[in-house]
Amino acid sequence: MNISKRALRIPPSPIRKLVPYAIDAKKRGIEVYHLNIGQPDIATPQSFWNAVHSYPAKVLAYGNSQGIAEYREWLAKYYQGNGIDITPDEIIVTTGGSEAVMFAMLAVADSGDNIIVFEPFYTNYNGYAVMTDIELIPVQTKPETGYHLPPVEEIEAKINDRTRAIFICSPNNPTGTVLAREEIETVSRIAEKHNLFVIADEVYREFVYEGKHTSLFHIPSLIERGIIVDSISKRFSACGARIGCVITKNKEAFDAMLRMGQARLCPPTIEQYAAQAVLMQLDEKFFPEIIEEYRRRRDATYEELMKIPGVLCEKPAGAFYIMAKLPVDDVEKFAKFLLTDFQHDGKTVMVAPGPGFYATKGLGKSEIRIAYVLEEEKMRDAIKILAKAVDNFLTL
Amino acid sequence: MNISKRALRIPPSPIRKLVPYAIDAKKRGIEVYHLNIGQPDIATPQSFWNAVHSYPAKVLAYGNSQGIAEYREWLAKYYQGNGIDITPDEIIVTTGGSEAVMFAMLAVADSGDNIIVFEPFYTNYNGYAVMTDIELIPVQTKPETGYHLPPVEEIEAKINDRTRAIFICSPNNPTGTVLAREEIETVSRIAEKHNLFVIADEVYREFVYEGKHTSLFHIPSLIERGIIVDSISKRFSACGARIGCVITKNKEAFDAMLRMGQARLCPPTIEQYAAQAVLMQLDEKFFPEIIEEYRRRRDATYEELMKIPGVLCEKPAGAFYIMAKLPVDDVEKFAKFLLTDFQHDGKTVMVAPGPGFYATKGLGKSEIRIAYVLEEEKMRDAIKILAKAVDNFLTL
Repeated sequence: MNISKRALRIPPSPIRKLVPYAIDAKKRGIEVYHLNIGQPDIATPQSFWNAVHSYPAKVLAYGNSQGIAEYREWLAKYYQGNGIDITPDEIIVTTGGSEAVMFAMLAVADSGDNIIVFEPFYTNYNGYAVMTDIELIPVQTKPETGYHLPPVEEIEAKINDRTRAIFICSPNNPTGTVLAREEIETVSRIAEKHNLFVIADEVYREFVYEGKHTSLFHIPSLIERGIIVDSISKRFSACGARIGCVITKNKEAFDAMLRMGQARLCPPTIEQYAAQAVLMQLDEKFFPEIIEEYRRRRDATYEELMKIPGVLCEKPAGAFYIMAKLPVDDVEKFAKFLLTDFQHDGKTVMVAPGPGFYATKGLGKSEIRIAYVLEEEKMRDAIKILAKAVDNFLTL
Repeated sequence: MNISKRALRIPPSPIRKLVPYAIDAKKRGIEVYHLNIGQPDIATPQSFWNAVHSYPAKVLAYGNSQGIAEYREWLAKYYQGNGIDITPDEIIVTTGGSEAVMFAMLAVADSGDNIIVFEPFYTNYNGYAVMTDIELIPVQTKPETGYHLPPVEEIEAKINDRTRAIFICSPNNPTGTVLAREEIETVSRIAEKHNLFVIADEVYREFVYEGKHTSLFHIPSLIERGIIVDSISKRFSACGARIGCVITKNKEAFDAMLRMGQARLCPPTIEQYAAQAVLMQLDEKFFPEIIEEYRRRRDATYEELMKIPGVLCEKPAGAFYIMAKLPVDDVEKFAKFLLTDFQHDGKTVMVAPGPGFYATKGLGKSEIRIAYVLEEEKMRDAIKILAKAVDNFLTL
């Protein structure tokens, strides 16, 4: 009686194996700066909490499988405000961005089909790919070019007759890279030529510090072949709400994803109500203030990183991650060292090792992902500690 | 650019096509008794609402992928209280029972493998099976035998070399049937002989009106090969909370499902906290009062059904459904007729047609599922209206 082969292949969380070491370090009295996960410290909006605390129903009933109609109306207004021309009927509310990713993948690919992704990429795409028997074909992007897309030929070289879609994520997790409009237009041309869907993860839409965010739906040629996956987790610092959505104007894909939504009944009811309250009460200062806060954190983080001899990294334009190449040849070992054999003034840092974000074995061994989710001064302190750790590690 | 073949195959909700007719009927001023979905009218416990209304955090953060540790401790106590000997470390909290079903299926079966189910069965199993490319092989149960399991030979005849598990649901949706201990022991023997997992949907555990509920884990021989899927949706009338769990003592299956859990990050945070509050404050009268209420509804529903000439149905011992065979040869047509061409004193009823619960084409054409989720007097009135409708329909 064996479990399934795919179940065996589902990758563990890349940071999970470090967790016991972090717990141990804390037990020894060491303060651990958590730069390893994208869990913002920003308060969830008061409008969200007010809605939760005054949720009026007596029976917590199933909601609509597509998502609560009124919430979808507010969502559509939010997208319209971002130059994304969609209606409430083109939105399916999902249980987090995670479910949106799964629905989109299932809508376009059968078992054995493949989807092009740019590595390094958000690890959890891989979990869903394995569960649904879809192959993710990685196209490498590099620290030397700020993790921007490689030349067209390199992308097309990976496309084969089982390729069904190209998956992009901008602003990017784990690299922070924001794709230029021209890059997404290039993706569109490739997709058109090879008759592919394009799936875009845009959960960090607002987190752009230079230039402007280009959405999939800003590119007219992508409107019929595009699927956007989204989430309120980062936008409203509501990771535990598990509210996302998937958007498409492709009627067939929409209907299929709606049927998937019916199979799982509905996304959480209370949090849709609360997310709607946030959208209804959103004022103009909300995002600028948060973005300013993250920009300060990014600048401080980048500035301190640049002081470490041998570090390679372009200043990323978005999200709240920096992927940096360190002068160490095995970041897995280094990340463990940080927690088991190092401290400075009773403090250390926890980072996400690069290999977890690559599908190609052997890549990312000198890279780490840093989530700048702590206040500026803490980020500076954390990166200074990281600098000392690199120094120590190199003289081991 | 086509969507995937499996996406095309995902079945729509069996009652969905009736929804527009129900909306239309209401627009015409007709009152519709909703016997078509298992949405209880019972209030969600006050302890749940108190916890939601006073949820203390400022940041709605990701929870543990396995579920909040303290909630799992209370869950383990709840299971112990039901004679199910498990620890918090053998539980993964899921986003509803739906996700628990998906995790369990994925843990045991690869693409092309199959799982034995007893039809009629809860339609949504099928949605997940299609998404994950698992075949559900139906073994028929019949109204004439109260939808109890057929002889061993009929079950074994369906098992082949790609069969990985037997899936049972007791108390059953849609039939209300409660499997006898001996039936589950039979399943255990078959599973042992053919080296299969056994997955049990026990979300209606408390809803038993005659005899006692037998859990998978009450059968010692099933402990190593058993996976329980569960949910608070019906138990605490919290369908919109999306909190379930999956339980197994099989270490390999557990680890695989935990990695699936990591891929989707976490189940909703607030509702776990609220569900824990319910468990902490549960008093001894809670279930007996609810069960008594449902028993009255069931008895009233059954009594009124039996007055309809030609109706065939055994009094079901559990859940809150009755599957009844009507003297009509096309219940899809009848269910539509109820909403479009019939009313009595300005009222009509909405039911779930039988074929939606069968995988075998042609079965269930005379059966309907009735959810007795309304108060006794309303149920009586609804079934009386149904009786008139049957009479009318037969004389069309």
